[in-house]
Amino acid sequence: MIKTDILIIGAGPTGLFAVFEAGLLQLKCHLIDALPQAGGQCSEIYPKKPIYDIPGYPEVLAGDLVDNLMEQIKPFQPGFTLGERADTIEKLDDGTFIVTTNKGTKHHAPVVAIAGGLGSFEPRKPLLENLEKFEDNGVAYMIKEPEVYRDKKVLIAGGGDSALDWSIFLADVAKEVTLVHRRNEFRGALDSVEKVQQLKNEDKINLITPAEVVALKGESHLEKVTVKDTSTSEERNIDVDNFIPLFGLSPKLGPIGDWGLEIEKNAIKVDNTYDYQTNIPGIYAIGDVNTYPGKLKLILCGFHEATLMCQSAYQRINPDKKYVMKYTTVGGVTGFDGSKKEAPKAVVKAID
Amino acid sequence: MIKTDILIIGAGPTGLFAVFEAGLLQLKCHLIDALPQAGGQCSEIYPKKPIYDIPGYPEVLAGDLVDNLMEQIKPFQPGFTLGERADTIEKLDDGTFIVTTNKGTKHHAPVVAIAGGLGSFEPRKPLLENLEKFEDNGVAYMIKEPEVYRDKKVLIAGGGDSALDWSIFLADVAKEVTLVHRRNEFRGALDSVEKVQQLKNEDKINLITPAEVVALKGESHLEKVTVKDTSTSEERNIDVDNFIPLFGLSPKLGPIGDWGLEIEKNAIKVDNTYDYQTNIPGIYAIGDVNTYPGKLKLILCGFHEATLMCQSAYQRINPDKKYVMKYTTVGGVTGFDGSKKEAPKAVVKAID
Ligand SMILES: Cc1cc2nc3c(=O)[nH]c(=O)nc-3n(C[C@H](O)[C@H](O)[C@H](O)COP(=O)(O)OP(=O)(O)OC[C@H]3O[C@@H](n4cnc5c(N)ncnc54)[C@H](O)[C@@H]3O)c2cc1C
Ligand SMILES: Cc1cc2nc3c(=O)[nH]c(=O)nc-3n(C[C@H](O)[C@H](O)[C@H](O)COP(=O)(O)OP(=O)(O)OC[C@H]3O[C@@H](n4cnc5c(N)ncnc54)[C@H](O)[C@@H]3O)c2cc1C
Repeated sequence: MIKTDILIIGAGPTGLFAVFEAGLLQLKCHLIDALPQAGGQCSEIYPKKPIYDIPGYPEVLAGDLVDNLMEQIKPFQPGFTLGERADTIEKLDDGTFIVTTNKGTKHHAPVVAIAGGLGSFEPRKPLLENLEKFEDNGVAYMIKEPEVYRDKKVLIAGGGDSALDWSIFLADVAKEVTLVHRRNEFRGALDSVEKVQQLKNEDKINLITPAEVVALKGESHLEKVTVKDTSTSEERNIDVDNFIPLFGLSPKLGPIGDWGLEIEKNAIKVDNTYDYQTNIPGIYAIGDVNTYPGKLKLILCGFHEATLMCQSAYQRINPDKKYVMKYTTVGGVTGFDGSKKEAPKAVVKAID
Repeated sequence: MIKTDILIIGAGPTGLFAVFEAGLLQLKCHLIDALPQAGGQCSEIYPKKPIYDIPGYPEVLAGDLVDNLMEQIKPFQPGFTLGERADTIEKLDDGTFIVTTNKGTKHHAPVVAIAGGLGSFEPRKPLLENLEKFEDNGVAYMIKEPEVYRDKKVLIAGGGDSALDWSIFLADVAKEVTLVHRRNEFRGALDSVEKVQQLKNEDKINLITPAEVVALKGESHLEKVTVKDTSTSEERNIDVDNFIPLFGLSPKLGPIGDWGLEIEKNAIKVDNTYDYQTNIPGIYAIGDVNTYPGKLKLILCGFHEATLMCQSAYQRINPDKKYVMKYTTVGGVTGFDGSKKEAPKAVVKAID
């Protein structure tokens, strides 16, 4: 059982910044995310694209924003349960919560903050007969640990940035990389497309287009895939250890929709007059996942909501204490790791 | 008469960021500030100190944050009325407003956003008999245009960062710089204190401590000040062109308090359930200057409030239009100056 002060569901920019604000209040956080990495939409959908409306950043790449947030929260040592989806919640008699993931990991906390964005990112899966049999036995929809593919024969399917970028990355790691796409044209960043062309010319990536995977074969683990040329309808078998269809991830509110929370337009209704709490006391919803009159699904709004939520969580966890806010510039930042950031102090010094 | 879409009173971080959000909605802004420079508390009180809780910035100097905001809003060409205090407001029959400053400058706009922070920064003045006579005739409490002091004999009074830093700066500009302080000890950044010590040793700054200015003399313009040594009580006259007492600026809500707005704890009550509007339709209050349940006087909260305010202002100004939000990453930023920032587009390209 993982124990923490604030359990945050969703490690997008909103959830990450909540760790910082909680840390200032001496509250520890643990984050759950269905994705293998932190950053939510920013990391998953547009890491290399610039955002122009983060206050104080005339321009920042979404991926860099996430890196900066990770750096900012480091002193507060958040825990992470990645690659798992929060599926069920149980309220105990003492008002605390137990949240369990699809893999059975249990988390216990007095406060739950749902920062689930547009929902848990779920892969679009190809329609293949015995697909489920091979899930975790050679078939994966996201790459959590690239080292798993070292010296393996990997077949990637897809025609977007993820398929391009992972083909490039694994070309250096795997024994063999085959990229299958149902068109000849790929859609992605120019340099990614060009790099794949180059690796293909150097025989470091096998390219099969226009084609699709039509069958999977193997005893218990995946051994072969059947690839069909969609212009000629010819089929051939290819020996592979891994098949990674990268057809995009689409967010689904999913099981959270059944937690008894008031839902409106696929989002969780919260009390924006005060603390972004839901209809269940102790459960908050912040960032893209919530809704209230005038709600804007913007990163900067999630930051504000996270900050106010933490104040309310503090009172819930410490009903008898009174928190007196101190500016970070004045009080500094004291990490749970013993680190201390502090503004240089003014001196009082005679001039003679 | 200066005309604009949103008239912003206060050019602190909140007012500045409002320019950006308004610009995305094609609304033009003009800012009034009592200070000679933009940035509010960040520029006036702690420009060289680090802030740790700006989301995405593990650390940023307050002055750099302001510079970055100025850079971010540049495409939207805000107008500025600096060094003037907004004193009166008049609501016209058509629902628009005229705001007049203490210097008589008039501004006309359909929406007024008060981003006045803790109030208009007003100088603490020394108690000297004919002080007012010399205001703008040799006596100034803030430095708007340092070039005014070129080749002048300047006497600065004060013992903090402003007095130290302006003495250092003007040592290179003025003919003579005298620094008077009632103690021998100065309070400021270590390097500022050390620099003044060095300039004093090089005879580039005349230092008189412990001492104070006790009288001002001159026909119409200031000609001499009388400085009294507070340990010996001896007095002497010093020929000067300018006397700049830098005893700090303190914020005062001031005349805005009489505009008919609901005031609570020296702040303006707003509707935080929707758009941070005050009890007078068309007048909003954002940032430190407002109050609502759970209000936190933090920069990041001002950013959020400014953003929601602009959406409401847009509807007020364009009652018949429906604004469809577009992410900056997707739609880019099109400045009023013709500039265009845009994410690099994905390509669709065959690999062969
Ligand atoms: C192409 C594009 C461009 C954009 N441009 C801008 C822009 O310029 N400016 C701007 O402000 N915003 C922009 N946005 C929106 C911005 O990315 C979102 O507002 C922001 O990511 C929301 O952050 P969040 O932390 O609330 O949620 P998200 O970033 O969506 O993160 C939520 C996370 O929660 C996880 N999750 C959800 N449910 C569960 C569960 N049950 N179990 C485990 N994990 C779960 C998800 O997997 C996800 O990782 C853009 C979005 C896109 C797609
Ligand atoms: C030492 C110190 C450290 C701080 N540290 C932090 C920190 O770490 N994190 C954080 O988030 N915040 C911090 N703050 C608070 C932060 O600076 C404020 O929240 C922020 O400046 C508020 O921005 P604002 O734009 O709302 O108002 P302000 O910055 O106060 O700007 C308001 C401006 O309006 C002008 N004005 C007011 N009335 C009038 C009028 N009638 N006519 C003309 N002009 C007018 C004023 O002159 C002023 O320039 C700190 C503050 C101080 C003093």
